[in-house]
Amino acid sequence: MRKRIYSVDVGGTSIKYGVFDSKKKLLKAWSVPTDVAIGSEAILEAIATEIKNDCEDVSQLFGVGLGFPGTVNEGIVIKAPNLNWEMVDVKAALTRLLGEKVVIAVENDANLAALGEYRSSSIDSDAMVLFTLGTGIGGGIVLNGKLWRGHNGLAAEIGHLDIGMFDFVCGCGETSCFETVASATGIKRLATMYIDNKRFNTSIETVYSAKQIFDAAKTGDKLALHVVDKAALAIAKATRMIALVLNPDTVLIGGGVSEAGSFLIERIEENYQALNRGIQIPVSFQTASLGNQAGLYGGYEAVKDYG
Amino acid sequence: MRKRIYSVDVGGTSIKYGVFDSKKKLLKAWSVPTDVAIGSEAILEAIATEIKNDCEDVSQLFGVGLGFPGTVNEGIVIKAPNLNWEMVDVKAALTRLLGEKVVIAVENDANLAALGEYRSSSIDSDAMVLFTLGTGIGGGIVLNGKLWRGHNGLAAEIGHLDIGMFDFVCGCGETSCFETVASATGIKRLATMYIDNKRFNTSIETVYSAKQIFDAAKTGDKLALHVVDKAALAIAKATRMIALVLNPDTVLIGGGVSEAGSFLIERIEENYQALNRGIQIPVSFQTASLGNQAGLYGGYEAVKDYG
Repeated sequence: MRKRIYSVDVGGTSIKYGVFDSKKKLLKAWSVPTDVAIGSEAILEAIATEIKNDCEDVSQLFGVGLGFPGTVNEGIVIKAPNLNWEMVDVKAALTRLLGEKVVIAVENDANLAALGEYRSSSIDSDAMVLFTLGTGIGGGIVLNGKLWRGHNGLAAEIGHLDIGMFDFVCGCGETSCFETVASATGIKRLATMYIDNKRFNTSIETVYSAKQIFDAAKTGDKLALHVVDKAALAIAKATRMIALVLNPDTVLIGGGVSEAGSFLIERIEENYQALNRGIQIPVSFQTASLGNQAGLYGGYEAVKDYG
Repeated sequence: MRKRIYSVDVGGTSIKYGVFDSKKKLLKAWSVPTDVAIGSEAILEAIATEIKNDCEDVSQLFGVGLGFPGTVNEGIVIKAPNLNWEMVDVKAALTRLLGEKVVIAVENDANLAALGEYRSSSIDSDAMVLFTLGTGIGGGIVLNGKLWRGHNGLAAEIGHLDIGMFDFVCGCGETSCFETVASATGIKRLATMYIDNKRFNTSIETVYSAKQIFDAAKTGDKLALHVVDKAALAIAKATRMIALVLNPDTVLIGGGVSEAGSFLIERIEENYQALNRGIQIPVSFQTASLGNQAGLYGGYEAVKDYG
């Protein structure tokens, strides 16, 4: 009987692997650096080889769930800028490499993280949105327990909502995108800008991480507190737009930035309440619980949904 | 056998009625002025009486679908500012007045219009959003053929998206709401503002309707063309936000303003294409087809879904 489910979270710097038994027990997780330069075909072959080597008996393989940092539709990675991929038919390639009997589920990585968080947490939600605040900002939407992908797999591209703050240029080419402010990159950019401005007293001389800014804010550093408040305002603004469209009950804050925990959540809530006037839409903000394994759990769930 | 379905679209100035047979044939439609002053209880009694008088044999009554201009959740009108209603349990009242066997479906009016348009049109859509551009702006979302109400019945409150244009004060108390620019009221307000500014040549002396502005624009009136372009930009901006969240395939333009037809749609498309950069999300804009009967058809569909 085929029991093993593999989950593969493909990023620009590393490829994370996880192997699950049929009861969703994560048996093992590991990662391998990504060699973007070798191209999509060689990367997919390397993934298939990694799985075959780990699995030993391929007849045990039930399915593989894969997440990619980009737009994905019906098994095809439409565009993944950090990988330099365009129109790569991942499902066809892995079906060829692993056999027709293996279920292949391909999704956007933030979508998988949302699905993983939703199914593994105690959240009782009929409409949940995950914000993945990392290098950029990804999003995932789970409605009535199922992933909402949108018509072209482009739902929850929330990192590119125009929040009308600062006019920084985004990786997508546009300005004022949500992710230019509230991602880890955005938080570092803001802190650097305020240091250069000399507008606030601060103990920070050089900015090297978002965590450093949160740690300084927690000790009362004025500049760091200002940066955290701007990021929280950006998150509140994006949430307000999403609330008026979808009316979710829960916004889950995940990704590296969410490690700031309740310190960040409280500031998001304050900013959201200040914007939540006129038509008032309640939203519960919570921190995600699976950390960087959310995508792996999501890959397991996607295989179960597809299979 | 119970076959008749009544649909009631309750507005601040009139209450529209429709009666359908079990095959969705609209047998009759009529309307009665709304006497807001008599209060919710008397209005609901008047609705029940109107239906009973029309129906003659109440044992023929299968269900009643009702739309209200406000927030609705689980049979209760939470808030309808134009009616001065708050927390009115419509479902309980009508069940008492018409009997337990009659299916009572209560929804936001724009939600019903979206459902009516979706089910009655030839649109092949897995994610459709209706913009009802009338006195205000309402919205309705149909995902995989079903109404998406959100966790509190507050989904698609798109009239209150902050589009960052003009800073007009909205009926909700906030500024820059979408409906302050692109509703019929907004279009009249804009035209009046530009006439007062004397910035454009125009044949218009007094503004009395949105239709007047569109008619003037179609004849090349510079001021009217500028107003139409601003409204189209506002619609494009709201659509861009919705597209990044939901990735719908279709945005249906309904309500009185949509009578401008392809003249408006073309300008919306141009403005949307100008904003649809970076992450590009295709959206098909179409005019709604049921006019002011969309809500009546939606009431029929809601009863069918509930019953």
